[in-house]
Amino acid sequence: MRTLVFLSLLSFSTLAMPQMSPSLNLMPVPAKLQPGSGQLVVDQSFTVSVTGAKDARLDSGVPKFLDQLSRQTGMPLNKQSGDAAKATLVIRCENAGRKVQELGEDESYTLEITTSRASLTAPNPLGVLHGLQTFLQLVSPTPARFAAPIVTIQDGPRFPWRGLLIDVSRHFIPLEVMKRNIDGMAVVKMNVLHWHLSDNEGFRVESKRFPKLHELSSAGQYYTQEEIREFVAYARDRGIRVMPEFEMPGHSRSLVVGYPELASEPGPYKAGRIGQDEPALDVTQDRTYKFLDQLIAEMAGLFPDAYFHIGGDEVDDKPWNSNPKIQEFIHAHGMKDNRDLQAYFNQRLQKIVSKHGKIMMGWDEVLHPDLPKTVVVQSWRGQESLAAAAKQGYRGLLSNGYYLDLMFPAAQHYAVDPMAGAAATLSPEEAKRILGGEACMWAEYITPETIDSRIWPRLAAIAERLWSPQDVKDPLSMYQRLDEVSWRLGWLGLTHETNYVPMLRRMVGGEDTRALRILADAVEPTKEYTRSETYPQVPVQPVPLNRLVDAARPESAVARHFAELVGKYIESGYKDAAAEGQIRSWLVRWQGNHENLKTLLEKSFLLSEDQPLSEDLAMLAVAGLQALDGIKMNQPLPEAWRAEQLAVVARSMKPRANLLIMVAPSIQKLIEAGSVPPPATKP
Amino acid sequence: MRTLVFLSLLSFSTLAMPQMSPSLNLMPVPAKLQPGSGQLVVDQSFTVSVTGAKDARLDSGVPKFLDQLSRQTGMPLNKQSGDAAKATLVIRCENAGRKVQELGEDESYTLEITTSRASLTAPNPLGVLHGLQTFLQLVSPTPARFAAPIVTIQDGPRFPWRGLLIDVSRHFIPLEVMKRNIDGMAVVKMNVLHWHLSDNEGFRVESKRFPKLHELSSAGQYYTQEEIREFVAYARDRGIRVMPEFEMPGHSRSLVVGYPELASEPGPYKAGRIGQDEPALDVTQDRTYKFLDQLIAEMAGLFPDAYFHIGGDEVDDKPWNSNPKIQEFIHAHGMKDNRDLQAYFNQRLQKIVSKHGKIMMGWDEVLHPDLPKTVVVQSWRGQESLAAAAKQGYRGLLSNGYYLDLMFPAAQHYAVDPMAGAAATLSPEEAKRILGGEACMWAEYITPETIDSRIWPRLAAIAERLWSPQDVKDPLSMYQRLDEVSWRLGWLGLTHETNYVPMLRRMVGGEDTRALRILADAVEPTKEYTRSETYPQVPVQPVPLNRLVDAARPESAVARHFAELVGKYIESGYKDAAAEGQIRSWLVRWQGNHENLKTLLEKSFLLSEDQPLSEDLAMLAVAGLQALDGIKMNQPLPEAWRAEQLAVVARSMKPRANLLIMVAPSIQKLIEAGSVPPPATKP
Repeated sequence: MRTLVFLSLLSFSTLAMPQMSPSLNLMPVPAKLQPGSGQLVVDQSFTVSVTGAKDARLDSGVPKFLDQLSRQTGMPLNKQSGDAAKATLVIRCENAGRKVQELGEDESYTLEITTSRASLTAPNPLGVLHGLQTFLQLVSPTPARFAAPIVTIQDGPRFPWRGLLIDVSRHFIPLEVMKRNIDGMAVVKMNVLHWHLSDNEGFRVESKRFPKLHELSSAGQYYTQEEIREFVAYARDRGIRVMPEFEMPGHSRSLVVGYPELASEPGPYKAGRIGQDEPALDVTQDRTYKFLDQLIAEMAGLFPDAYFHIGGDEVDDKPWNSNPKIQEFIHAHGMKDNRDLQAYFNQRLQKIVSKHGKIMMGWDEVLHPDLPKTVVVQSWRGQESLAAAAKQGYRGLLSNGYYLDLMFPAAQHYAVDPMAGAAATLSPEEAKRILGGEACMWAEYITPETIDSRIWPRLAAIAERLWSPQDVKDPLSMYQRLDEVSWRLGWLGLTHETNYVPMLRRMVGGEDTRALRILADAVEPTKEYTRSETYPQVPVQPVPLNRLVDAARPESAVARHFAELVGKYIESGYKDAAAEGQIRSWLVRWQGNHENLKTLLEKSFLLSEDQPLSEDLAMLAVAGLQALDGIKMNQPLPEAWRAEQLAVVARSMKPRANLLIMVAPSIQKLIEAGSVPPPATKP
Repeated sequence: MRTLVFLSLLSFSTLAMPQMSPSLNLMPVPAKLQPGSGQLVVDQSFTVSVTGAKDARLDSGVPKFLDQLSRQTGMPLNKQSGDAAKATLVIRCENAGRKVQELGEDESYTLEITTSRASLTAPNPLGVLHGLQTFLQLVSPTPARFAAPIVTIQDGPRFPWRGLLIDVSRHFIPLEVMKRNIDGMAVVKMNVLHWHLSDNEGFRVESKRFPKLHELSSAGQYYTQEEIREFVAYARDRGIRVMPEFEMPGHSRSLVVGYPELASEPGPYKAGRIGQDEPALDVTQDRTYKFLDQLIAEMAGLFPDAYFHIGGDEVDDKPWNSNPKIQEFIHAHGMKDNRDLQAYFNQRLQKIVSKHGKIMMGWDEVLHPDLPKTVVVQSWRGQESLAAAAKQGYRGLLSNGYYLDLMFPAAQHYAVDPMAGAAATLSPEEAKRILGGEACMWAEYITPETIDSRIWPRLAAIAERLWSPQDVKDPLSMYQRLDEVSWRLGWLGLTHETNYVPMLRRMVGGEDTRALRILADAVEPTKEYTRSETYPQVPVQPVPLNRLVDAARPESAVARHFAELVGKYIESGYKDAAAEGQIRSWLVRWQGNHENLKTLLEKSFLLSEDQPLSEDLAMLAVAGLQALDGIKMNQPLPEAWRAEQLAVVARSMKPRANLLIMVAPSIQKLIEAGSVPPPATKP
């Protein structure tokens, strides 16, 4: 299906190669865009007409589009659509979509804007929904009015699977938070919400068949079946599939808390702990399959999507090793090891999943030659693993490199391409088996308050990677458009911007947050899994996530901006006075900040751990200012000074209070430029 | 009932007079507060137990309280309440409340916090709800933990009627926006939502009896009866009565659009126009009363509150004068004029309202000696009018001085006391007839996006005026606490802070908002009714409210802060170097801002009208800096310079783009201090 889209795009040979005109901040960048000159007025007389195939998603999508246009312009608009002859925007949808949205349904669209009207044509309602998002991004204030530029866009996705996994097991995420993130996904044309509904720490769906699942393993925080249906419908209305995941045979504590007879060890098991014991299902006994058959029957009925994710990752050896009956089973059936046992489990599981009308999906570890080729592999390991699967005939998608919880910058995710590395060497037929990718929002350290700021705006960069042509990869352009899309997301109610200052304000007990914000703006949470080391092992209750590390952005825009300034200044041979002035102004701000912040840090226990960071930021600033003076007066500071300052830099880039001072590397460059280097070591 | 509360308070003679310890930012200030030393730890083991009378508002209020505590601390808390012997907070409610909340129900409470526990006791659930809000305001981070200070509070309201009117006729306000404002009202212990549901511009309630009311006069924007019930229950749960208002016999265009036979002129009438024709009901014909009887019967059944507001203000003479039949009626019945006719109408109306079990309320104009003393008067005219009514035996409440749409500063509203002026001379018995007051949010220039910023935080100052003892009136303390309460309101979802930058960002088309924010922070919307002059007379659709005047705060915190600095500097005899430094830093920022903003102002039609303001802010800043230098070097600038700069000041304080540059008066002081005064005019 993806190939078809591409063929139709290629026929538009007159269209320009993907390249953004500077005034068009579209994200994701469309496949083909032909800019014109002039503009289409968007004022209160704006109307929409829908022609062609009928589809409920258009009936609800057009008023939502008008609402959104109204919100982003502040102009009340008529809700009713006009007739096709007079409407400002004429939509034509060729065919109705599938009753349940399918992988590979045609998502392409053509948007043509002239000075008198806009026309949006798509083979399928999904393309219409995407095209409406593009139109919204084109409308902005001009000197005389709101307007959209004259342009012809022929667009379609590079990959048919562009997903976001949200883990609601480790921290429960309420439905309204899930919904606003669906809204955000629609803005950047993503199309799969992968709902990680069960894991060791919680089972989050009401099960009528096995009520002890949600009753004992959710602390009352679960979705009712009615809410699940409501959410699935909500996502469908926005062109997004919802695929559930139920982890088995590992990551399964929440299954065995209420049903310990399923586990390979007798239990009992306690709900709700993060990072504790790792039970595994006893996959040698028939009753486990009987249970799963009934559970999957129930869940398959609840989730209409064709794909059903069974987890399958990180099965701990310990519980299977410690059960002699299981080891005996392995031996008796001529299996080599626990891996073979898991393959045996997956084969039986796949039959159950398939019996209930679903295609089974699992993480890397499910891959085993004994499994049918319909199984789809999600790779947390990387392109090599993905390519290996594709070579064996399995379809797969990439998640390695897209883990949002690791707190990496957008550019790092943006640089990860599913078709890179080992995947680049696949034959065309094999390559088609790479369906796309999924960003993962694991939930050890997120709450409903912070989740948006961990997902957004970075997810938009991943969304662009999965939608736009492979050669769209300039990080500078990406960041410019990321900033633009970020505030648009704010109109939809996403809280990645708005929750920041209130969280800071909580820490200072309602005092002025300016000084704390200057510190918070300059730091980032530690990367990868370094935070978990300090996570309490057996929380009685969820640990409060109310410290600076929780408010701080995964990526500091200030640090990025400062690094750009320092880069510019150095590249200019220290002659760019404007850059120097701005660098100095930042350094002066940081220099004085600790003095302003000190009392607040002492007054609030939430901030006491940040004292050394605040001190070091001031010290770094002083060093930076001294270095600047040294550079300017051509009087390099002594080597001993340099060593002392670099020690502060090194300390600043080590986790303290789970934070890093992200402006330190740029200040390091100033220190090195403004001081005497150590003598060269002998070869 | 109020008197009883006061007596019980007086018996706590050992308690200190109302006076805030500097660390307790309570708003409104409680009647009596006895600070202690030490603190009560508020951590994740926090539990609540409820004893005494049962009331559904406690069943829902306690989990809401725990949610709120959890949100403001970022600590997940157990939702279930503990037993009384072990709970951290023990609530004792003496009696269940009335089935329908009544005016004058006892709202007092006693909150006693010791190092080991807190106890909250109240005669009525309303007091418990208020006490819980007080407790929330007491919890803040300390050097070791979240804690509440040791304190004994004996609190109760000064007035039994503390209301907010929201006009939903001129601009419709959706239910969720209404609800979040109810949440805000509960924080500051207000207890009446006066719902201005009909006016010339719209009728906002579904009427099953007269469907043409909402069908023809709401453009589809109305509350269904189910939504009304839901909202009334929502407000009740938070200790707030909902009183509806239906305007008659004037302000009644929305009634006569669908039912022109009720009007004194034949019509036809068109819905939705602001500030256009002012019809009046034909109150001489029986069918008008028959209609009103049925309408009021329906609405009285929908709104359980005992009070029913019939408007009654500003009846235009024109429609009655131009109908000879009506003038004949006046003559035939021995009436003097239209005022007598309105009194005749009100007498008949009062009987209808009373027949349906309600107490009639109306604006000043309803006051007429022929009306029964049960009628309650709401005064938009002032204390004189209110006192006159009280002397005649009518109960009343004050709204004059509390109009939020006039964009006055909080301190101005705060200084208005219902018992001041003519009301101060009332006898104790007459004084008791003054029930309190109501802030009014008229909706000509608000939208769901901006309403919160027009109501909050200023409403909290009015709420304190109506709750706290009369001698609590220091504006400096008020502002400090207003700032504190403002961010707490943010946790509840009120958008007065969070919508600011997104609105600015819309104007600059997604560009950086910093420069625009510096301008926006320094201006305020024009005061009183000056804006309406530029309001288009016949809007086909609602006019977009998306300009700087809509984003700008009614009260500029920057201007207030700057005025304080300038005041301090002048009072110090120009010796306060710290103040001078801060003044200079603001002036430098403003001086350079126009240069940064210029391009943006040109690029967006939403901002072009603000060009002169931005220019003048920079000019004022230059003048201020020159004046500062003149003062510092003891070299006053020449008289001609002074005259020139004062012209800029004068211009800055005149409305342009519906805005005033609010830092101008402070800069004027600097200019005057730093230059040669004109020669004294001869006596």
